[in-house]
Amino acid sequence: MKQTKIKGVLVPVITPFRQDLSPDGKRFAAHCRWLLDQGASGLAIFGTTSEANSLSVDERIALFDELLAAGIPPARLMPGTGCCAFTDSVRLSRHVVASGCAGVLMLPPFYYKGVSEEGVFRSFAETIERVGDPRLSIYLYHIPQMSQVPIPISLIERLLSAYPVAIAGIKDSSGDPANLRALLDAFAGSDFDVFPGSELLLLEGLRHGGAGCITATGNVNPGAIAKLYDNWRSADADAMQAGLDAVRKAIQAFPVIPAVKATLARCTGDDAWSRVRPPLVELAAGQKAQLAAELQALAFTMPGIASLA
Amino acid sequence: MKQTKIKGVLVPVITPFRQDLSPDGKRFAAHCRWLLDQGASGLAIFGTTSEANSLSVDERIALFDELLAAGIPPARLMPGTGCCAFTDSVRLSRHVVASGCAGVLMLPPFYYKGVSEEGVFRSFAETIERVGDPRLSIYLYHIPQMSQVPIPISLIERLLSAYPVAIAGIKDSSGDPANLRALLDAFAGSDFDVFPGSELLLLEGLRHGGAGCITATGNVNPGAIAKLYDNWRSADADAMQAGLDAVRKAIQAFPVIPAVKATLARCTGDDAWSRVRPPLVELAAGQKAQLAAELQALAFTMPGIASLA
Repeated sequence: MKQTKIKGVLVPVITPFRQDLSPDGKRFAAHCRWLLDQGASGLAIFGTTSEANSLSVDERIALFDELLAAGIPPARLMPGTGCCAFTDSVRLSRHVVASGCAGVLMLPPFYYKGVSEEGVFRSFAETIERVGDPRLSIYLYHIPQMSQVPIPISLIERLLSAYPVAIAGIKDSSGDPANLRALLDAFAGSDFDVFPGSELLLLEGLRHGGAGCITATGNVNPGAIAKLYDNWRSADADAMQAGLDAVRKAIQAFPVIPAVKATLARCTGDDAWSRVRPPLVELAAGQKAQLAAELQALAFTMPGIASLA
Repeated sequence: MKQTKIKGVLVPVITPFRQDLSPDGKRFAAHCRWLLDQGASGLAIFGTTSEANSLSVDERIALFDELLAAGIPPARLMPGTGCCAFTDSVRLSRHVVASGCAGVLMLPPFYYKGVSEEGVFRSFAETIERVGDPRLSIYLYHIPQMSQVPIPISLIERLLSAYPVAIAGIKDSSGDPANLRALLDAFAGSDFDVFPGSELLLLEGLRHGGAGCITATGNVNPGAIAKLYDNWRSADADAMQAGLDAVRKAIQAFPVIPAVKATLARCTGDDAWSRVRPPLVELAAGQKAQLAAELQALAFTMPGIASLA
């Protein structure tokens, strides 16, 4: 049993860009520090919300190194390292594992569609063998609406059987409560951790053995989400969940990544946060105003965020 | 009007791997040479069939350089250079354009799904601006079953209007005769070249202004496909097309990339050609035998291929 496994609320940190769309390590580190200060357990940098696949491997490694140089503790990091080419996944994973990260969040290769379970198994196996580091702790990334390559329970069982030390858990971003429940039931009582990919399923998950959540909107609402994680057995847990749901739904009524970035831009007064790399597109002015109005109607705030600007 | 635009039969060349799954530049160059000897007009290296997205950008650049060092003329090459990160697309495109390639075949970024046409436009625009080379000649790659990000006619028109020199044509791998026809009609009489992504639509395409085809099975049947391209106005064109169709259908009854590789392995007697990188999986022994029997029943041969072993 690993004593140090990370649990709680993890944030797939949005990636700030300068005017020339180069990654901005300074703003990135400042935001990471604020997230930890607000109660986030960990930082799942280089996830879908981070636009990681819109960055080259070199850019990801440089940004990671800047974060560590800025003093962000690697034990609080769970970087995304799953690429289409296992040579890329190996290179990224080796780098972050050698630095002492809590774990890695690993997409399956996502270019080919309709691939066999055997092929996906081999992708993970090849990566694990080549990383060749006993500290490697993999959280599988199930996000079929993006990857189009699911991580079914049968695959997890096969991976756990072959690599019991390396396979640590899963992020279930399907948004499907039935899939979350099936995962929680299948691995109940084991050391395999299940994180729903949204705070909408945080309480439901915790009540059935979930390990927390890894959620895009944690970028702007980390304190309230962490509070529910810390107090999920309290009498007002359902009310807290309802409060989280209202904020989440206001944000995800828009394209989520630009909406999260626009919210951070507004609350910091630093419009640079709005920038996205293509193929994403920032929210239009009218959308930004509408989102702001809806969040203000919910009395949504980001405590201490102005200091980030 | 560009006088030197490449037309005819282009082959998305399969990538050979050594036992440790590293790309094998020697076998790659030998196969490229054989394809040109057989009548292929060009080599669309680093395509879907090439497992290019299973290679890192560094691996692709190294393999490209090996090919040029082996004497393959860059004017016959149309490398795939479209990646999820525009920084990768720019780096790869710059490298191959500076070497004098005939063009590049460019996927849209394919991780995010449901992205806007504006976002895809910006991806291509950012890449074109940053490559900044007037020799850049882009063939858009429409393969929605893999990329999940289509290239509609409205996007092509916008790109052509903004970048009339850089946008050269399209590979339509949808396999949909109606989409092919719509493209051919939309750009009839213009300098924008339309290549179907399979020889199944070669004759149909040529009869309506098509530029040839770019096809996976060209790896094993290039001579017969080139012969139809060269003689499509002849009386026996339909019979030639029927012959091509029979071979194609025998191969695509199996997963196409492993089936093409298995066929080359069998005909060269060099089983190394069977290897694929995960998430693909090589054909099982029974599948290989069945495919071989079906091709033998069609009297399929690969002239001069034994010399490649």
